[in-house]
Amino acid sequence: MKGADFCSCTPQEVRELIRQGKYNLPTPGMAKGHVQANLVILPKDWAYDFLVFAQRNPKPCPVLDVTEPGDPEPKMIAPGADIRTDIPKYKVWIDGLCVDEPTDIIKYWRDDLVGFLLGCSFTFESALLGAGIPVRHIEIGSNVPMYVTNIQCKSAGRLSGPMVVSMRPIPYTQVPKAVLSTGRFPAVHGAPVHIGNPAAIGIKDIHSPEFGDAVPIYDNEVPVFWACGVTPQAALMVSKPPFAITHAPGYMFVADSLDSSYAVF
Amino acid sequence: MKGADFCSCTPQEVRELIRQGKYNLPTPGMAKGHVQANLVILPKDWAYDFLVFAQRNPKPCPVLDVTEPGDPEPKMIAPGADIRTDIPKYKVWIDGLCVDEPTDIIKYWRDDLVGFLLGCSFTFESALLGAGIPVRHIEIGSNVPMYVTNIQCKSAGRLSGPMVVSMRPIPYTQVPKAVLSTGRFPAVHGAPVHIGNPAAIGIKDIHSPEFGDAVPIYDNEVPVFWACGVTPQAALMVSKPPFAITHAPGYMFVADSLDSSYAVF
Repeated sequence: MKGADFCSCTPQEVRELIRQGKYNLPTPGMAKGHVQANLVILPKDWAYDFLVFAQRNPKPCPVLDVTEPGDPEPKMIAPGADIRTDIPKYKVWIDGLCVDEPTDIIKYWRDDLVGFLLGCSFTFESALLGAGIPVRHIEIGSNVPMYVTNIQCKSAGRLSGPMVVSMRPIPYTQVPKAVLSTGRFPAVHGAPVHIGNPAAIGIKDIHSPEFGDAVPIYDNEVPVFWACGVTPQAALMVSKPPFAITHAPGYMFVADSLDSSYAVF
Repeated sequence: MKGADFCSCTPQEVRELIRQGKYNLPTPGMAKGHVQANLVILPKDWAYDFLVFAQRNPKPCPVLDVTEPGDPEPKMIAPGADIRTDIPKYKVWIDGLCVDEPTDIIKYWRDDLVGFLLGCSFTFESALLGAGIPVRHIEIGSNVPMYVTNIQCKSAGRLSGPMVVSMRPIPYTQVPKAVLSTGRFPAVHGAPVHIGNPAAIGIKDIHSPEFGDAVPIYDNEVPVFWACGVTPQAALMVSKPPFAITHAPGYMFVADSLDSSYAVF
């Protein structure tokens, strides 16, 4: 059983399966055509800093929805959903350290918590595939490789940290098309932030990603880097808010919104 | 003396002129090629609600910069500038009523005030003109007509209100090009929100705009409506925060950022 087995399910069906504990794997491929989202939950006291951080760093932190304090329903992108139960795996952070990876967060929920749903690269990967551009980690069935860079995000209040990027090897001849097809989706990371030289953005070893899995890069290919929604998790590690919850990388929130609704042309 | 006489000035020169009280007219045409911005200033206590309001209503409220509480410098889009002095005319709001229209806001400034700089249609008007599409109110030297619609913004906390739109008559044959050329700029209102029928969005009389000046619509033209950065002022009137400051419509903040930097392709 894997995500792609549920590609034709509706987002509501997918969330129901996850909510009932019947699916506990990564979500790529589920409810094809619908947006999947990164999740960051913070106490209201930190929510303003996070929104300003996101405004100043829109490529890694594209905000798709903000829940009301204490209310677990993301009304803009998934009415009726519950961010406490509808993701297969979470990470609970205390003072910047991950202390638990539960399958729901009911016992951690508080009346002052605010959820931020952020755009995810799965949306633009559909655009890449649709443009005939191969996506290596999908071909080989692994997680996308992600790296911490030396690009510092613009800080906001108590939040700061480095940008995390995801990498896809793209054939030289298809790089322009890859830029244009992902550039159509500024609300889900948009165009690449770097093309070609990992060292130029502080990546020491392309074969040792900090998150996800290494993938092979063939001779006719160049590594292309996109801003990644794991960036807020790096900011949590650096900025150490007393309490936070996120999704576990690869285990995303499946929303009702269509991928296509985030294309600007 | 009008804005266009200062089209070749730098943004810094324009702001210096305004700061010294040597220019007190609307800003269209000044420092051509550079972004002009709407301004909303609120106490920190209301700033979170405003940011969530902007996130939920990105077409009328595209946030380009957020200042630190008490700090009048918009560091992202105009380092060294001062939002208290660098706009020719402001509006001061108490409980949703405009009580003053000063030429600087030094005496109103407080340590808890946060400034939000929002994208403005002047950026996409340059794109329209560049695409060979006429812009009526520029042709006839008047202010753009703006209307309060029956489109309700998504509310956020204590903030709610109707969307305000600006209107430009576009020749039928050029409407698709007008949509595409402004759609390239999602960070400055983007594509139109309505084309064709004023009554469909609650506009009773196209010849009586709520803000700005009426403009003629010729036989071969259709009225095209874009989300407008005056929307937050309508939200202030409805939501009545105890204190707020905005720019006066047409008297914008001239930033350093280039118009072209907000194009997504």
